[in-house]
Amino acid sequence: MVTKSLINQIKQLKQKKYRQKMGLFVAEGEKLVGELFESNFEIFQVLTTENTPRFSAYFISKIEMKKLTHFKTASNYLAVFVIPKFIFHKGTILNSVIALDGIADPGNLGTIIRTCDWFGIKHIACSENTVDCFNPKVVQASMGSIARVKCHYLDLTKFLKASNKQLLACSLGGKTIYNFSFDEKSILIFGNESKGISNSILEYANEIISVPKNKKNNIIDSLNVSSSLAIILGERFRQIQ
Amino acid sequence: MVTKSLINQIKQLKQKKYRQKMGLFVAEGEKLVGELFESNFEIFQVLTTENTPRFSAYFISKIEMKKLTHFKTASNYLAVFVIPKFIFHKGTILNSVIALDGIADPGNLGTIIRTCDWFGIKHIACSENTVDCFNPKVVQASMGSIARVKCHYLDLTKFLKASNKQLLACSLGGKTIYNFSFDEKSILIFGNESKGISNSILEYANEIISVPKNKKNNIIDSLNVSSSLAIILGERFRQIQ
Repeated sequence: MVTKSLINQIKQLKQKKYRQKMGLFVAEGEKLVGELFESNFEIFQVLTTENTPRFSAYFISKIEMKKLTHFKTASNYLAVFVIPKFIFHKGTILNSVIALDGIADPGNLGTIIRTCDWFGIKHIACSENTVDCFNPKVVQASMGSIARVKCHYLDLTKFLKASNKQLLACSLGGKTIYNFSFDEKSILIFGNESKGISNSILEYANEIISVPKNKKNNIIDSLNVSSSLAIILGERFRQIQ
Repeated sequence: MVTKSLINQIKQLKQKKYRQKMGLFVAEGEKLVGELFESNFEIFQVLTTENTPRFSAYFISKIEMKKLTHFKTASNYLAVFVIPKFIFHKGTILNSVIALDGIADPGNLGTIIRTCDWFGIKHIACSENTVDCFNPKVVQASMGSIARVKCHYLDLTKFLKASNKQLLACSLGGKTIYNFSFDEKSILIFGNESKGISNSILEYANEIISVPKNKKNNIIDSLNVSSSLAIILGERFRQIQ
């Protein structure tokens, strides 16, 4: 039986302060749980509504699962994992080629993590006000890539200033990415969905680069940040693989 | 005062069958409502919690807005617009360069519409089981682009067969897009988030094209469909503008 205390504990993991306090996060759905099961994440609890589960899990009823889910529609698996303690290796974090300044939408961060994974980028430097990567919606949208891409939360302005790398602000009104030569060691900076990149960071950028839009197009003023990142990482990959 | 009947009517617009019955859809948030206000969409009702609204709107309390919103967090504006009746011009629909086969996630469709708008693509051919473009979450994620990009719901297999164009299935395991020459007249086909492109459509494709992934990367097996579309449209734009 699922106890009231477990229900409360899992429900609380929707909030960052409880995730940090308990050191746990939640993943839902067979495909996602299966992927994280194979990762290095330490398992705390796996619950399922399946009679013959694919992997070792505690059976609960669909009614119980409905009480536990963080989503509108409950799925057949819900797992709780231990949040890994990333050790801040100056070397690894300095390998970040992506810096996120205040990404607020969890779906966007999850999609960004997935795209970074696709292109082999393992570390992301995040400003402290970027949405928590263990938010259930980020974990969901990352589709398992959360196990392979590390988000490092830090003082982004300080980090970028100290990085000694070429800083590329990905924003509007800059040099078109198709006339730009990407360098393996540059850092690509993406800003908040509505406010963009902070001025305190923009002033240190060596260059502003942009995805050009169709010339006949006057009304649309921005792309979704995860789409813009996908296009820019694609072009970077084409140039330097 | 907001009547019970209006609350019910707006609440019902969350469901496709009521949107179709009433011929109405909902948009929320100042930026989005403002953009649609300037579009050709016919306004049915605009409600606001602002005392000095930016545009002509009916004042309601925040408590009333909370009852009306389709989202977790209510915003300051909610507008109801008339769903335009697209007239099926063979010419315009044949200009579609994007075909969507069963896109299910409203956030993905909204983001796809926004990216198409950015690159000047005005028409999208959608299979009948693709999520409705007037779903509140699609409208939200499209960020106003819903006013400029038309989704045509049709028998996609039939449409593609009759199109007489080069059909490019955007899927896994195909030719890399960076070694592929895009033709202005091709149709790019994207499939459902988990099932991909239907076999009945795949068998008519002239070519399968793919976003290559980092070679060291064995685990990740797919990109988000809206990210993949963004990368492919970006590369197409680079080649043929």
